[in-house]
Amino acid sequence: MTTRDQDIADVIDGGITTAEGFRAAAVPCGIKKDALDFALIVSDEPASAVGVFTTSRAIAAPVLVCREHLDRSGGLARAIAVNSGCANACTGDAGMAAARQMAEAVAAAVACPLEQTLVASTGVIGLPLEITKIRSGITAAANGLDRSSGHAAAEAIMTTDLGPKETAVLVRTPSGSFVIGGMVKGSGMIEPMMATMLGFITTDASIDSVRLRQALLSVTDETFNAITVDGECSTNDSVFLLANGASGVTVDDAVYPEFVAGLRRVCSVLAREIVRGGEGATKLVTINVTGANTHDDAKQAARAIANSPLVKTAIHGGDPNWGRLVAVAGRAGVGFELRHARVRIGPAVLYENDTVWADREPEAAEHMRGHEVDVDVDLGTGGDGEATVLTCDLSAEYVRINADYRT
Amino acid sequence: MTTRDQDIADVIDGGITTAEGFRAAAVPCGIKKDALDFALIVSDEPASAVGVFTTSRAIAAPVLVCREHLDRSGGLARAIAVNSGCANACTGDAGMAAARQMAEAVAAAVACPLEQTLVASTGVIGLPLEITKIRSGITAAANGLDRSSGHAAAEAIMTTDLGPKETAVLVRTPSGSFVIGGMVKGSGMIEPMMATMLGFITTDASIDSVRLRQALLSVTDETFNAITVDGECSTNDSVFLLANGASGVTVDDAVYPEFVAGLRRVCSVLAREIVRGGEGATKLVTINVTGANTHDDAKQAARAIANSPLVKTAIHGGDPNWGRLVAVAGRAGVGFELRHARVRIGPAVLYENDTVWADREPEAAEHMRGHEVDVDVDLGTGGDGEATVLTCDLSAEYVRINADYRT
Repeated sequence: MTTRDQDIADVIDGGITTAEGFRAAAVPCGIKKDALDFALIVSDEPASAVGVFTTSRAIAAPVLVCREHLDRSGGLARAIAVNSGCANACTGDAGMAAARQMAEAVAAAVACPLEQTLVASTGVIGLPLEITKIRSGITAAANGLDRSSGHAAAEAIMTTDLGPKETAVLVRTPSGSFVIGGMVKGSGMIEPMMATMLGFITTDASIDSVRLRQALLSVTDETFNAITVDGECSTNDSVFLLANGASGVTVDDAVYPEFVAGLRRVCSVLAREIVRGGEGATKLVTINVTGANTHDDAKQAARAIANSPLVKTAIHGGDPNWGRLVAVAGRAGVGFELRHARVRIGPAVLYENDTVWADREPEAAEHMRGHEVDVDVDLGTGGDGEATVLTCDLSAEYVRINADYRT
Repeated sequence: MTTRDQDIADVIDGGITTAEGFRAAAVPCGIKKDALDFALIVSDEPASAVGVFTTSRAIAAPVLVCREHLDRSGGLARAIAVNSGCANACTGDAGMAAARQMAEAVAAAVACPLEQTLVASTGVIGLPLEITKIRSGITAAANGLDRSSGHAAAEAIMTTDLGPKETAVLVRTPSGSFVIGGMVKGSGMIEPMMATMLGFITTDASIDSVRLRQALLSVTDETFNAITVDGECSTNDSVFLLANGASGVTVDDAVYPEFVAGLRRVCSVLAREIVRGGEGATKLVTINVTGANTHDDAKQAARAIANSPLVKTAIHGGDPNWGRLVAVAGRAGVGFELRHARVRIGPAVLYENDTVWADREPEAAEHMRGHEVDVDVDLGTGGDGEATVLTCDLSAEYVRINADYRT
């Protein structure tokens, strides 16, 4: 997110129903015990729709159905149904049938063409999706759609998330104002390439699906694909963006940069919330890599550092352990020149040009006592490739959560 | 290690000085407080010598010196000097000078050409190597060399290892018998800035350096390069293999397979010890991947699974969470067919051909209560690529050890 994004797009209270013409409902459908576990999001009019999906080769049934529907509808959608508690992944033909039945029930309840429905699931892998519960959820939700249920919807899509994650921005342009808002679920299994996360973004701008796709791809690369909790990527990861035009503002070439700025702001806020809410996380860590031969090299090194258990445990312990940063940068598989490398933690350069500045470690340690830790590593190649990845620390609590998840 | 290896090579008590014509000494040189921290290994005659070194681009000074010496000597060595407590990494020109001075002092003490000396360091990164202490260690060690100090040498190279790791085998061939023995210090036992595996192997077989290199490369691929504790690779990782011919047995084409079998047995035992001693480890985990398009694909998938924090925490918790195994296999970046994939934990197939066998989970959970856990994942491509990687579980203790070092 650049300063310019903040000038263009004001963050406002809101989420998935803040844009005009979107309604939502959240209900308990019985997959989880006594909790909201089903959300329905509906656009009053058919909306331009795009999605980006997991790069895993183990792809869950709802992802396959969404790809089909977006293809057949030519990028139009009226409704998205989401359940938590069951990922409908590794469920074979029965899982595909259940995902299709879920979509059919949504189409019937909302009275729209089947291909204008999207479905998403998150939760335990390998569990059959109980379609009877889903159907009752769809019926209840379709009867309760309103503009004020965005927050409840953000709750209903949670799995081990500590709380709902949503935001919205108001984008002012010479042609008028429009809103972009959204919600995500995150937690563990988060990594670039759409790790285990679900994201839903709505806007009342009018924008064709070609521009919409271009905007979503470029923004996810800088936001959702530049975060990692534990290097994992899931079977169900999806981000959807729907634009229904209800604001009357059309995103043409002139307005497009503002649209992207607004979208980037929404996705930046949500991406940071995902990392901040990483399982067991106590610190938000920004890994900034410079001096790489290329941007891709920089991103690869930043990801390696961001996923290193030795780096993440050192940060958890508040230990300004620059040696681990050098070691990981050196083994990241990209151009690296030890003699010209530099490591900075917070305000303190600890290693530069073969020189160790041990006396600056207390300053770095002081910085690391905060909840936000900045780590800069220059790979020393002299190239101008750079990249930033957000991550969190690795705590004993992460181990506890993930050792006990199902038991 | 195959059954055939066991037929050919009997494990015997011993280590780095069990092969004829090798002597060692271990002394405290003062880098660590009140502990053995320096070892010298000497071959009575010049030995064929090869080394494999870290693939990191952040390379410690002693590694650079060893590469130079092996190159200049044409693959001959008389002595290896090793210190623990200081890695002499990220130490710039001063570090290179210190590594060279260490080698020079060894050459003088042993009375051999400089290029027939090898040096290795392990310990804290960024700390200057105190050459005066090293020199006094070399003098003391050179005066105390004997056949019975192999065990003490294995102690002297430890950093946070729980104990010394050494083994030896007797290889019987029609041309006579020879010994291969060795010692290692672990990787992933990583005190702060300590993340090194060092391996030293000696044999009294006679073998030219071309065959020696070929044998070491093929065996390390199956052993030391098929283990992982936390996915980290250090600035100092090195494995050395010296063959001095003192047994009178020459490894020709006929004997070569037996030599490789014996070497593989030694390296297998040592590699397992490294994983078993991983920080906070409570279980030794064998990840076996089949059904890959190629061996390299299989190894990439096995490594991804072995390094996955979600898999490692599930194993720590005794949770037969086959869904995480599928998810990681799917995102490993290699050919994967969900419909034909299979996951087995211990004796229990939990997922196969799109079918979940939840009723077999108790059997898998029972298997996971043991100290050795076997995980088989078939990628379902129908290819015959397969690979095995050893790893350990991820415990809260690992986090504690690595987060709390300096606090």
